[in-house]
Amino acid sequence: MLVHTDYLWFNTKKRQEFIRITDDVAAIVNASGVQEGLALVSAMHITSGVYVNDWEEGLIHDFQTWLEKLAPSGLAYRHHQTGEDNADAHLKRTIMGHQVMLPITSGALDLGPWEQVFYAEFDGQRKKRVIVKVMGLGARG
Amino acid sequence: MLVHTDYLWFNTKKRQEFIRITDDVAAIVNASGVQEGLALVSAMHITSGVYVNDWEEGLIHDFQTWLEKLAPSGLAYRHHQTGEDNADAHLKRTIMGHQVMLPITSGALDLGPWEQVFYAEFDGQRKKRVIVKVMGLGARG
Amino acid sequence: MLVHTDYLWFNTKKRQEFIRITDDVAAIVNASGVQEGLALVSAMHITSGVYVNDWEEGLIHDFQTWLEKLAPSGLAYRHHQTGEDNADAHLKRTIMGHQVMLPITSGALDLGPWEQVFYAEFDGQRKKRVIVKVMGLGARG
Repeated sequence: MLVHTDYLWFNTKKRQEFIRITDDVAAIVNASGVQEGLALVSAMHITSGVYVNDWEEGLIHDFQTWLEKLAPSGLAYRHHQTGEDNADAHLKRTIMGHQVMLPITSGALDLGPWEQVFYAEFDGQRKKRVIVKVMGLGARG
Repeated sequence: MLVHTDYLWFNTKKRQEFIRITDDVAAIVNASGVQEGLALVSAMHITSGVYVNDWEEGLIHDFQTWLEKLAPSGLAYRHHQTGEDNADAHLKRTIMGHQVMLPITSGALDLGPWEQVFYAEFDGQRKKRVIVKVMGLGARG
Repeated sequence: MLVHTDYLWFNTKKRQEFIRITDDVAAIVNASGVQEGLALVSAMHITSGVYVNDWEEGLIHDFQTWLEKLAPSGLAYRHHQTGEDNADAHLKRTIMGHQVMLPITSGALDLGPWEQVFYAEFDGQRKKRVIVKVMGLGARG
């Protein structure tokens, strides 16, 4: 069995930004040599998420509008008494999820026709990380 | 180590439908020969989900009513400018989650007394798939 | 490859309570002998969750207030016609998620600087369980 670990780094220009990472993850899976297994893709910071959905700008806009409605910024969150101003980012990333498990079949991500992996930044403009941990059988077991 | 892959197909009569799949997943786990490990159950389409919760019709109705309140259909979503009409389905499946990892102990799903696995269709009436990927130790390692 | 299974038990004093379990999970990972792999941490009851976020009392309060707004208790849920009174707990745990996968690198949980694992109880005051299933390579493979 093989286990392979890599990290993706982000430092977004805007506070909130959704970035497609399917190809980055696929490259790590390829480098791992795993033919049959699973890849964990997980945000290592608690104000960003990782999710699977459509690569369509309109829908990405809908997600962001919807999250602002469900978890508004600018409220008098108790978390802000610590000096923070990003409680909404913690809530928004909880809705979207912070990690996905991706199946690997015959050496490639086994995704449906429209499945794309995204990094969702809700409190950016600083360095943040995503771990990609690949585990499974290689060509020689 | 063993890795076993199978797929469940759905083509629901109604646009929205929740279907219990615990037994289907258990049968795949059984066929895999895995005694100790994990099973990923993940929707391969981006308007459906997979979740674990109660097998009780009243609660299923509550979930559906609640999702319609949190992510209403029929709004002027930007995604609909592409010709689609299912933005709410993308949002609803995000709330429910689109995948679960199920533990396998002594050759069987290691679930709590009320845990049941469901497929949640939010834009059905067409063929869609769920991947089940089982990984772990078999009787001979 | 190693697979190691353990369970954490909870019996909260209050109906709703969030409990940090990072150290408990880390101890199980340590006992497993796994050096490179993954740990599933999953609630085995359907009115509690497991999530990763900040260990800050203000934010925990914000989460609980927010969940009460998104999924209020005391409504006329159809689930309550069965005699239950906890439909909101099923919904709240769905927002928070009921499981996480934690990466293990060099024998330890590979978490970001602020990542903490929590058990989220929404219908407590009775015995409930979380499964921790660790899988991966040990020092000897």
